[in-house]
Amino acid sequence: MVNIAMLGYGVVGSGVAELILRNKYRFKDELNEELVLSKILVKNIGRHANNKNSGLLTEDIDDIFEERVDIIVEAMGGLDPSYEYVKMALNMKKHVVTANKDLIAEYGYELLRLARKNGVTIHFEASVGGGIPILKSINECLVGNQIKSIKSILNGTTNFILSKMNRNGMSYGNALKLAQDLGFAEANPDSDVKGYDAARKLSILSTIAYNRRVNWKDINIEGIMEIDSDDFRYAKLKKCNIKLLGMSKICNDDIYASVMPVMVKEDSVLGKIENEYNAILVEGDAVGDVMFSGKGAGMFPTASAVFGDIADIIEHKKEKSIVFSKEKARINGNWSLKSKWFMRIKTDDRIKVIESIPLNFKSCYILSNDFSGNKNEVAAFVSSDNENAVNDYIEKIKQKKYAESVKKLLVLDK
Amino acid sequence: MVNIAMLGYGVVGSGVAELILRNKYRFKDELNEELVLSKILVKNIGRHANNKNSGLLTEDIDDIFEERVDIIVEAMGGLDPSYEYVKMALNMKKHVVTANKDLIAEYGYELLRLARKNGVTIHFEASVGGGIPILKSINECLVGNQIKSIKSILNGTTNFILSKMNRNGMSYGNALKLAQDLGFAEANPDSDVKGYDAARKLSILSTIAYNRRVNWKDINIEGIMEIDSDDFRYAKLKKCNIKLLGMSKICNDDIYASVMPVMVKEDSVLGKIENEYNAILVEGDAVGDVMFSGKGAGMFPTASAVFGDIADIIEHKKEKSIVFSKEKARINGNWSLKSKWFMRIKTDDRIKVIESIPLNFKSCYILSNDFSGNKNEVAAFVSSDNENAVNDYIEKIKQKKYAESVKKLLVLDK
Repeated sequence: MVNIAMLGYGVVGSGVAELILRNKYRFKDELNEELVLSKILVKNIGRHANNKNSGLLTEDIDDIFEERVDIIVEAMGGLDPSYEYVKMALNMKKHVVTANKDLIAEYGYELLRLARKNGVTIHFEASVGGGIPILKSINECLVGNQIKSIKSILNGTTNFILSKMNRNGMSYGNALKLAQDLGFAEANPDSDVKGYDAARKLSILSTIAYNRRVNWKDINIEGIMEIDSDDFRYAKLKKCNIKLLGMSKICNDDIYASVMPVMVKEDSVLGKIENEYNAILVEGDAVGDVMFSGKGAGMFPTASAVFGDIADIIEHKKEKSIVFSKEKARINGNWSLKSKWFMRIKTDDRIKVIESIPLNFKSCYILSNDFSGNKNEVAAFVSSDNENAVNDYIEKIKQKKYAESVKKLLVLDK
Repeated sequence: MVNIAMLGYGVVGSGVAELILRNKYRFKDELNEELVLSKILVKNIGRHANNKNSGLLTEDIDDIFEERVDIIVEAMGGLDPSYEYVKMALNMKKHVVTANKDLIAEYGYELLRLARKNGVTIHFEASVGGGIPILKSINECLVGNQIKSIKSILNGTTNFILSKMNRNGMSYGNALKLAQDLGFAEANPDSDVKGYDAARKLSILSTIAYNRRVNWKDINIEGIMEIDSDDFRYAKLKKCNIKLLGMSKICNDDIYASVMPVMVKEDSVLGKIENEYNAILVEGDAVGDVMFSGKGAGMFPTASAVFGDIADIIEHKKEKSIVFSKEKARINGNWSLKSKWFMRIKTDDRIKVIESIPLNFKSCYILSNDFSGNKNEVAAFVSSDNENAVNDYIEKIKQKKYAESVKKLLVLDK
């Protein structure tokens, strides 16, 4: 008998409860173990009165830590009180499974060490990429590789918004509203649209992939709020789509890491990931490029990953938990590869701006302002050896009286 | 110290030897284990005289089974003598890692039970999808799901040939020759182009996914030898590409399983997998669709998967090996979903054939014979509730004197 207690009973928790039920006898033949969900912590029992699991509900955290409980599933999200509860669980020598990327991005290092100290494990496959088996794949299957880079779409909400803007020509505001109406975006969408959610997931992925701690706050983060329909029209000229990419990469002793909107080829693997889907492209020195994609969130995709972690604990109970490296990564936020960049410069002197571009970039493609419909913008695709050169140009031009603001986007050719 | 001995020292074996060397100290900190490659079995030591591992070579199988050896990597391929050697290894209580799909497809059931009987494990991640972490993902991460279907490109050689036919308009013969010249196809390409290799891999995948033994010989197998340039031209009319798909699917109590060339949309995930890449699309009842892709063969991608298995044994040494279910799957080779089919009918009476199509299919799209350039062929896309109805029509028309031969291809709309 394996007793599981759960913290939280929202969307993810309901999915997990259902999968535990469906898989009650999954380990009966092999391990002679039956799964039992024994307690669920909720804020207000009254709100779940008619639920089929209402007999399991409790408002008292101490009920969760009963002696017979082996595994605690944290499905509350956020940091408070998850962080305290998970620490308590580990100190009580309970195994923990969580889908909480905020928690792992913020306190992963500490919690993983605490788990090890207590001889238990903390699993968090669902915290990155929802149902996609990505952490275990990197950590176990690709362990013979040095991971060289990661390119990923890790936030379904922004990918949904950008997909609608691309496919249906929707404005950012309308696409966000649609996402909220359909339940893909929260009332306060900041953490998604500002790129924080993707950055937290990228930090977890990168910490495991490069075996160096990547602090999500060190990542160069740009959201999608400034992306407009004209950006998509310009992108289409180069057969591109715009995606919020989380990218990281070994650069000598540093790790490059960023979350930002990027123009990617429409027919590239990442360019084709639509709506709430996530994708992770991992480059290993032995395996080459391996691509994973699937639903990055939602009740059952997330529960699928949580259940995989529960199974892992049951089958390998005595194993040591992984730990995050002591070594902190030095993060470099500048894209250092020779690449194309797209720029839009608001100006009241187009000629001066147009003149300045070929003086600063060897190769450039300057566009007339057909899309914005007014005469105060210059758009251009330029080639540059690295991001610094583009930033230098932007700084320089911003100091001129005729240039008002500049927007830039990396263009990935493959 | 973990001692590894290897059977065979060809392409895969060389990659494995290199990865073992690169990762010698990978488990030093955590487990205080060093990896040592201690023996390599070859047919003829003389042929490897200048190799840096020449000191490890032996022609005597008994050297491989020395007491200090913990893990034996089988990298010979084929069945003879791999099968006998692997049995010997398991009976000597050595863990085994193999990349050999022939071996596992043919003797997996027996070998997995033998491993368990001897308290050791046999791992075979590299046998399906090369470096793609697919078996562990299905077996561990997606264990909370009932797997409903698999659609896959599992043979890099045929995918390379079909990619060249599609992109460069090459004939089958020229594309095969190019694949052979580049080392993607063997001198005798039968096992690849006839679909046997893909069928063996599909049988391993499906046996794990559905927990029922799928015998590869029961799978409905069709190769790519009959695919010609005209098929690709017809496919393009429907914005399709042609891929050799391995597909399986739960159908009530049966398992549908086939390997056959299929028209897939150019912009679908499988339609975009090019050249030597493999891809596996797994549909789980909880997770939805999850997609995996990467290089399906080659020295280092295969070695990457073999190394992941070695790591698994080192980290979870005391675990029980998985076993294949006792239950044999009842295989159904008929595609039972309402789908489009493409047919080409050689005939000396086009009118009669053209008349017969709408009489047998509610929805059809009949093409003039622009491509073949002669007047003795009718091509058509038809809709049908299941494959049987198409086969019935083909049987019927073949009995007519005016219809000489019929080729059919499933058309997948998404």
